[in-house]
Amino acid sequence: MSRFSVFYRIFASNLDEATERAEGIALEQTVEIPRDVVPKGYIEDVILGKVESVAAEEDGAYLAHLTYSPDSTGAELPQLLNVIFGNSSIQKGIRVVGFEPGERLSADFTGARFGIAGVRERVKRPTGGLIAPVIKPQGSDADTLAAIAYAAALGGADIIKDDHGLTDQASAPFKTRVEKVAAAVARANRETGGHSLYFPNIAGRGEDLMDFARFAKEAGAGGALVMPGLFGFDLTRRLATADWFDLPLMAHPTFLGTYVLSDTLGFTHAVMFGVLQRLAGADISIFPNVGGRFGFSAGECLSIADACRSPDGIGRPIFPSPGGGMSVDRAQDMRAMYGDDVVYLLGGSLLRHADRIGETIRDMRARLA
Amino acid sequence: MSRFSVFYRIFASNLDEATERAEGIALEQTVEIPRDVVPKGYIEDVILGKVESVAAEEDGAYLAHLTYSPDSTGAELPQLLNVIFGNSSIQKGIRVVGFEPGERLSADFTGARFGIAGVRERVKRPTGGLIAPVIKPQGSDADTLAAIAYAAALGGADIIKDDHGLTDQASAPFKTRVEKVAAAVARANRETGGHSLYFPNIAGRGEDLMDFARFAKEAGAGGALVMPGLFGFDLTRRLATADWFDLPLMAHPTFLGTYVLSDTLGFTHAVMFGVLQRLAGADISIFPNVGGRFGFSAGECLSIADACRSPDGIGRPIFPSPGGGMSVDRAQDMRAMYGDDVVYLLGGSLLRHADRIGETIRDMRARLA
Repeated sequence: MSRFSVFYRIFASNLDEATERAEGIALEQTVEIPRDVVPKGYIEDVILGKVESVAAEEDGAYLAHLTYSPDSTGAELPQLLNVIFGNSSIQKGIRVVGFEPGERLSADFTGARFGIAGVRERVKRPTGGLIAPVIKPQGSDADTLAAIAYAAALGGADIIKDDHGLTDQASAPFKTRVEKVAAAVARANRETGGHSLYFPNIAGRGEDLMDFARFAKEAGAGGALVMPGLFGFDLTRRLATADWFDLPLMAHPTFLGTYVLSDTLGFTHAVMFGVLQRLAGADISIFPNVGGRFGFSAGECLSIADACRSPDGIGRPIFPSPGGGMSVDRAQDMRAMYGDDVVYLLGGSLLRHADRIGETIRDMRARLA
Repeated sequence: MSRFSVFYRIFASNLDEATERAEGIALEQTVEIPRDVVPKGYIEDVILGKVESVAAEEDGAYLAHLTYSPDSTGAELPQLLNVIFGNSSIQKGIRVVGFEPGERLSADFTGARFGIAGVRERVKRPTGGLIAPVIKPQGSDADTLAAIAYAAALGGADIIKDDHGLTDQASAPFKTRVEKVAAAVARANRETGGHSLYFPNIAGRGEDLMDFARFAKEAGAGGALVMPGLFGFDLTRRLATADWFDLPLMAHPTFLGTYVLSDTLGFTHAVMFGVLQRLAGADISIFPNVGGRFGFSAGECLSIADACRSPDGIGRPIFPSPGGGMSVDRAQDMRAMYGDDVVYLLGGSLLRHADRIGETIRDMRARLA
C-alpha cells in the first residue's frame, strides 16, 4: 500500500456534513473539479483523494482519514504540502492533525541526515541536554557578534546559532559575519579542545542562498539555521539532501505561527513543528517554550517534543528545541519536563550579563546535569 | 523619512495592555532581546522598532502603528516579511492590517513589472474583464492538457493557466507539458489571430525552478503562475525582477489561507492578497471568490480587489483574480461587483462541457460585455 495518509479534524454539525466536507477535501486537494466531471480510470481510481473513514470525536468534531497517491506529488516536497493542505488551507474548520507517508514517500523523503544521534556525535555530547546560545541583536557588527560567539564557545556551548533576524544586512553582511564568527568559534575550540558548532542563518535573497550555504560550509560552519516559513520547507529538504552540504539543520518557526494558533485551522503543533520538520529533513526543530513570551501550553510543547523524537516518525528522531524566554533559572524545570534529548536555546537572557556569557553557560550545564 | 510602517490590530483589554504589547512587538520583530539589554546608539535609535501610536478602535481592539528601519531588512523580501510579522506570527491576538514601505523600500521594491496596463497590452484587451480558463485535472497527460488549452485559445481566452496542482509529476512532467501546451496555444493564436497567453505553474523541486522558468520562457509561455505559500514570496520577486524572464506573473493563494481566516491572527485579506502580492511583484492575484467553495465574504473580496487596484499601493495597480467556483452564470453579477479590471478564472465549470470550451468562453465574454 503506497498511498499516503492525511488526517484532518473537521468541524461540522453532524456526520453527514463532516463526510461531505471530507469528500470535498478529496476533490479540492487533487483534481479540483466537480465530482461528476472527474475522468474515469486512472484519475478517478488513483489520483482522486480517497476518504477512508470519518468518525466523530469526543468533543463534537470529526476525524477524517484521507489517502492520496504519491503520483500526485512525485518526490516534490512543495507539491506534497500542496496536496496535504494547499487549497484546504483556505477553508474554515479543517485542521491537519496527522500525516503518514506510506511506503513510496518514505523512500523519497528520508528525513534528517543526522538526527539526535548524529548531532550528538558532532558535538561530542553523548548524553544530556544541548545548550545553544544565540548571537544577536541585529544591527551589531560582525566583530561584536563574533566576540559573543567566542565567549559562548569558550563557555562550552554545543551550538551557537545566528539570531533568525541576522540575514545579509549591511551591519553584518552574511559572508563577513559567517567568516568572522566561524573563525572565532574555531579559535575557541582550539583553545579549549571543545566542539562548539556554529549555525549561521541561511537567509538573504533567494538567488544568493545556495552560494551562502556553500560559503558557510567552506568557512567552517558546523550546521545551519533555516526558516521554512519564509523560504519554504523545500530549502530544508534541499540542504538536507545536498551532497556538498552535509551539515545538521536547525529549523526556526518564524512566520509559521499562524498555522497553529487557531484550534480549528491550520496544523496541530505536533504536525507543524514535529512531523513537517522531520519530513523536510531538519535535525533540530525550534519552537516557543511554555512560559516565555509566547502562548504555547505545556501540552502543546510536549506534543512537539514527542513528534520530534518518536521512533515511529519520519526518518531519524530529531531534537526539539524550546526557545523564547528560556533562561538558566528554568533549566531544571525544563529538564524535568523534556528529558535529555533537547537543544535549549539561550537568547536575550544570555546578553543580560554579556561579560559572563561563559559562566552562564557553565551554570546552565551544571543545572541540566 | 525612510522608515517603513506596519499597522497591527492588537487584541487587548485596555490601552495600557495594548501599548505594552505594541512595545513587545517592536522588540520581538527586531532585536529580540529584553528592552533593558538593547545596546545604546544605533541599535536602540535606529534598529529597534518604534511604536508611533496606539489607539482604540470602535470594536474594542487597538490599532498600533509601528515603524522599522530599512537597515533591518536591506533589499531582502524574506527579511522584510520577517520584520513585519516573523515571530509575532506566533503570538495570539495580533493581526497585520496595513503596510507602507516608505521612501527607501519603495525604491528597493518596485512592484509589478506589468500591472493591469501591461497585461492588457500583452493580451490586446484594452477594456473589459479578462477570461482565464484553467487546464486540469492533475493526472491528465500533456496531450490532453494541450487539447484543452487549444480549445480555450480558439475560444478567445486571454490567459490559459495551469492548475496549481500541475507541477512536475510523471503524468505530465513540467517540460513536456509546457512545450506541448505552449505550442497548442501558439497554433490557436496563429489560426485566430488571437493573443492568448499560457501561464505554466513554476513548481517542482527548488533546484529546478529557475531552469523551469527559463524553459517556459523559451518555449513561448506568456506568463507564469507562482505559489508564494509553498515557495515563498521571494520567488515572485525573483521572477518579477529577472532580466531574462520579463513575463507577467499570477500568484496563487494555495497554502496561504490560514493566514487570513481568523479575525485575530495573521493578515487581513487585503494585506495578504493585495499588498504583499504587489510588494512581491505579482501582476495578477488569485483569491477565492465569494459564493464559491470558499468562505470569503463579498466585503473581503472587494477589499482584496481594492488593495490590488488602488493607485496608492506599491508599484503598478494589479489585477484581482477571483476564482474557485466561478462560472458563466455568475459573470454579470461579478462584473457588477468588481467592475472591469478583473481576471476571471474558469476552472471546473469549464470542463463540465469539455466539447464546448470555446463556446463557454465566448458566452462568458458576451455576458461580461
